[in-house]
Amino acid sequence: MKQVAIKAPGGLDNLVMSDVADPAAPGPGEITVRLHASSLNYHDYRVCAVEGALPDGRIPMADGAGVVEAIGANVDAFAVGDSVVSGFFPDWQTGDERPCDFSTTPGDGRDGYARERVTLPATWFTHAPEGWSHEEAATITTAGLTAWRALVVDAGIKAGDVVAVLGTGGVSIYALQLAKAMGATVIATSSSDAKLERLRELGADHVINYRSTPEWGEEMRRLTGGRGVDIVVEVGGPATLSQSIVAGRPGAHLALIGVLTGRSGEIPTALLMARQQRLQGLIVGSREHQEDFVKALDALKLRPVIDRSFPLAELAEAFRYQESGAHFGKICVTI
Amino acid sequence: MKQVAIKAPGGLDNLVMSDVADPAAPGPGEITVRLHASSLNYHDYRVCAVEGALPDGRIPMADGAGVVEAIGANVDAFAVGDSVVSGFFPDWQTGDERPCDFSTTPGDGRDGYARERVTLPATWFTHAPEGWSHEEAATITTAGLTAWRALVVDAGIKAGDVVAVLGTGGVSIYALQLAKAMGATVIATSSSDAKLERLRELGADHVINYRSTPEWGEEMRRLTGGRGVDIVVEVGGPATLSQSIVAGRPGAHLALIGVLTGRSGEIPTALLMARQQRLQGLIVGSREHQEDFVKALDALKLRPVIDRSFPLAELAEAFRYQESGAHFGKICVTI
Amino acid sequence: MKQVAIKAPGGLDNLVMSDVADPAAPGPGEITVRLHASSLNYHDYRVCAVEGALPDGRIPMADGAGVVEAIGANVDAFAVGDSVVSGFFPDWQTGDERPCDFSTTPGDGRDGYARERVTLPATWFTHAPEGWSHEEAATITTAGLTAWRALVVDAGIKAGDVVAVLGTGGVSIYALQLAKAMGATVIATSSSDAKLERLRELGADHVINYRSTPEWGEEMRRLTGGRGVDIVVEVGGPATLSQSIVAGRPGAHLALIGVLTGRSGEIPTALLMARQQRLQGLIVGSREHQEDFVKALDALKLRPVIDRSFPLAELAEAFRYQESGAHFGKICVTI
Amino acid sequence: MKQVAIKAPGGLDNLVMSDVADPAAPGPGEITVRLHASSLNYHDYRVCAVEGALPDGRIPMADGAGVVEAIGANVDAFAVGDSVVSGFFPDWQTGDERPCDFSTTPGDGRDGYARERVTLPATWFTHAPEGWSHEEAATITTAGLTAWRALVVDAGIKAGDVVAVLGTGGVSIYALQLAKAMGATVIATSSSDAKLERLRELGADHVINYRSTPEWGEEMRRLTGGRGVDIVVEVGGPATLSQSIVAGRPGAHLALIGVLTGRSGEIPTALLMARQQRLQGLIVGSREHQEDFVKALDALKLRPVIDRSFPLAELAEAFRYQESGAHFGKICVTI
Repeated sequence: MKQVAIKAPGGLDNLVMSDVADPAAPGPGEITVRLHASSLNYHDYRVCAVEGALPDGRIPMADGAGVVEAIGANVDAFAVGDSVVSGFFPDWQTGDERPCDFSTTPGDGRDGYARERVTLPATWFTHAPEGWSHEEAATITTAGLTAWRALVVDAGIKAGDVVAVLGTGGVSIYALQLAKAMGATVIATSSSDAKLERLRELGADHVINYRSTPEWGEEMRRLTGGRGVDIVVEVGGPATLSQSIVAGRPGAHLALIGVLTGRSGEIPTALLMARQQRLQGLIVGSREHQEDFVKALDALKLRPVIDRSFPLAELAEAFRYQESGAHFGKICVTI
Repeated sequence: MKQVAIKAPGGLDNLVMSDVADPAAPGPGEITVRLHASSLNYHDYRVCAVEGALPDGRIPMADGAGVVEAIGANVDAFAVGDSVVSGFFPDWQTGDERPCDFSTTPGDGRDGYARERVTLPATWFTHAPEGWSHEEAATITTAGLTAWRALVVDAGIKAGDVVAVLGTGGVSIYALQLAKAMGATVIATSSSDAKLERLRELGADHVINYRSTPEWGEEMRRLTGGRGVDIVVEVGGPATLSQSIVAGRPGAHLALIGVLTGRSGEIPTALLMARQQRLQGLIVGSREHQEDFVKALDALKLRPVIDRSFPLAELAEAFRYQESGAHFGKICVTI
Repeated sequence: MKQVAIKAPGGLDNLVMSDVADPAAPGPGEITVRLHASSLNYHDYRVCAVEGALPDGRIPMADGAGVVEAIGANVDAFAVGDSVVSGFFPDWQTGDERPCDFSTTPGDGRDGYARERVTLPATWFTHAPEGWSHEEAATITTAGLTAWRALVVDAGIKAGDVVAVLGTGGVSIYALQLAKAMGATVIATSSSDAKLERLRELGADHVINYRSTPEWGEEMRRLTGGRGVDIVVEVGGPATLSQSIVAGRPGAHLALIGVLTGRSGEIPTALLMARQQRLQGLIVGSREHQEDFVKALDALKLRPVIDRSFPLAELAEAFRYQESGAHFGKICVTI
Repeated sequence: MKQVAIKAPGGLDNLVMSDVADPAAPGPGEITVRLHASSLNYHDYRVCAVEGALPDGRIPMADGAGVVEAIGANVDAFAVGDSVVSGFFPDWQTGDERPCDFSTTPGDGRDGYARERVTLPATWFTHAPEGWSHEEAATITTAGLTAWRALVVDAGIKAGDVVAVLGTGGVSIYALQLAKAMGATVIATSSSDAKLERLRELGADHVINYRSTPEWGEEMRRLTGGRGVDIVVEVGGPATLSQSIVAGRPGAHLALIGVLTGRSGEIPTALLMARQQRLQGLIVGSREHQEDFVKALDALKLRPVIDRSFPLAELAEAFRYQESGAHFGKICVTI
């Protein structure tokens, strides 16, 4: 079968496709999955594009969606032919003991899904939403579950809440769609008026061009009658966080997801304190969160926004396209 | 102005309309509201239909919707011309100190809204949802807020949850609509196949005729793949609670609202314990809950189901119609 | 090694001690534990005393404490010589997916700890609190963890809360001790003035003889200045629940644990509703709960109250003593 | 009566004592309080020491404790002779609508308690803990309630949690005492070995000299077996927050209180995210929080640590002593 692995020292020029033997038949508790799609996230970009991020030969990509081809003993959750999607933290099944690094994440600390076939414990997967394509399903693992975790698990979103989403990456668009589908009001930002128009079409109640309105925090407060938003899905990081704090109402929930603008920076902690807000760091979620999320997607009938797909052989091109920032929604890979 | 009051000893034949003087102009913190609608709830029925429930001369009806006609000093929240709706517990503005009787409720311990005009503290009202008729707005005070409190405040509903609603009274239909609008799956019951059909039209994913399926708890479990529902909006009381416990998944939230089938009864406490469920008693909610609810209604764009309206002069007829059980959704009164 | 098993058809006269082979050496993920103590709970009594409760040959007793004798491959959590205590639901490690029967509980759906030695998955045990005797440690599995779950996990007890505990069984005394150690005020009941005196010595702020004060719910309200208690550890069941509802403040948390007075009964559901209380059914807890509990016990320095110990050979006598109701705190068995 | 007011342009040299008329007799809902003590907080220091912080003539001090001297109509909560203590946010009685500035705080946006007597709404006060001196009671308003809010209201502390407290200011020592009294394990820091010794005497399980151990975050992780602490009471601000993030376990609660080291600074947001921690900004709490806190203090029997008291006439000296950092616990003022 085909697979793509990272050749030392890494970087996008060192994503190498090769032919390897198929995986072994599934043992007890295992399943064999024929993977059909993956999707790109900033995390995958980092591990593929940064030299030395991963050891020689590591197979990248945290997202994987496909079909169960074979089942080992003692597997009740799946049947041959089921559509499944991978989990970001296979060892975080349930409960509140959270991982705090990527050492157990496929496509990072472990081999990922840039290949045609895997044999792995059944608990590494959940069912895909009913009727979704494999490319659509692949967007759940990282981007979708992050948005769900931020809004539902951590922030406890309710109808009538006002949610701010920043930019047009996969997490932000998922958050926009989920928030609207659960009865929230959404304010979205972008530096492109064309993208703002698309955000409106997806349901954003208000849009702000953060380039022409650099004080977009104040603008969000104005749009909410001076009160501020209830939830910010903070994918930017240090350079956007100050505006997010300004945008948030007293007691707001700020879901801290992003490192797009850096890993540290000058933060107005006194303002966060005075506004009595909660800055909640998170990375993706547990398998139980993913099962709840899939159940929700089945009920909500929404579909993810896919910008474009590349064949697995063109994985490096896909990342370069991601690098350009031209996309709106998810970039996928077909396998 | 016109008003309806209860003449001792009470009962539907003693609802007496009369002409009285208009209320005084609003003092500091007060507003004068021209009431245009009320709606009927089981609670109103009890206070009007049971002899001796209230003292001579009490004005019934907890629900009141209308327009602000005049404003006293120090009232910032409202302007003349605003559409407003009354709160069930005027003294429960916010926080968790819950009332546990009806001594402060308009139309019970205090005079209610079966009259054309009131002058009362502004804090007894909230804004009505934008664009709603007064009859629609009047349904919020008791039925609407009860459903909101049960699902959102107490149960913390999330998309993908399975919610059971019982019958076709005002609370149950509100709960059905709210649950669907927030991404839940809904199972509804009725003894009438015609009403079940209407529940389906309103979005119910599954319907059960509880007459032909008296073991509807088991049926709900079957419909959820053996797992059980996440939330039951329990408006029935003792005679339905056993089935609700059977219907609920381990750890389910049962919102205990109803006294339709009695004030006490044989309850399988051991089953509630073994299934590790939560039976949460509640009556309506605080003004802060109502403000959140109105905000949600503005975002959700749903509208309440009104069965029929009666003029205030025919309030007794309205209650007799309610008594018949023929209605589907709310019965309103125009003033 | 010695073990006690239940001979069909069961009942206390059919608890039979015999010699059997030692268990196998531990496989991967397993440990061998030399059990030194168990303790008696109402649940154990039911399975041992009721004919036909369990299949022929089942080894009873859910509680087991002892020392790790051997360790299989891939066991990091324990070392040979560690003192350990068994968990009530070995399959409920973490998370919110709660069991709702005893099919996976040792001493009920599976063989329990009335024996000298077991080889089982390491995840079936946690560490015992530091410095505790095995008899003390054995009281954690069922009684201790139930009290912890009720007060801490479910009710979220905080200093200054008022907690009501009923009677002098193992759960109630644990709840009294835990509540006091976390800064709560405790009201305790018993039908014996001598036991009330001992409850006072253990820290109860108020005691009530429920025989001489059958309206003890009203008395609890009086003792709290009319407000009512915040939490009731309801071990009685149907016959005490009405008084517990009366005792509870509006919004109180009632932890529904007990079946001592029956499996169902007449419950004033309307009063539970009007007082807006939460009746939370529960059975024991997860392994994660038990780990938290052991950590708390290490910090709190409290010790369980043990009434009396019997050798394993006298298990039937121990249950007969429990049946008499003369005990105060836990009855243990040494192995 | 005597009072101290700030003369423009402010600063410690402009705290001026004068004789003024007694306040008016209490109107409806009001009480007259004879103040006997206040206590110093960093917030009070800022408003008194920074030129231009407050308008000319403002009476400083947020904390005020004394005795009710007279009662207006419709005041049920207090009787003449009751010991009372002031609230930090008189307009924040209950609920979750949090203030986000000091415009309503006595001693800042409004006149405070550096005077002998006030007539104010009864709702601006709560009862003092039973048997406390006025100086002790005065420490509740700001420092005590902040510690309570951080640990109990926001973090939901439970027995067995590990809590980190930084330094020996009023909030940190309250947090140490409260955490110990509720069964937590406490790690405390200071730059003075003598103060560390006193922290130990107050119950700290571990102490760290942050001067000799600048990587005290790692040290806290080591002391918790590599896991990290559950809660950090973060009174430092930007310069300590990085270490606090390192100290916290995955998912830890960091209560962000402090501006001691600045109002903004370089924060490792990526680390907060990766460790999935919650940074919760807060300022003090509501009157309902204070009532719960007083109830807890009555049950817990702990007493605040008072370093030293100054007469009101020496308020500037008191602040200069605070400025020196030599104190351990609270500095009080007698009136």
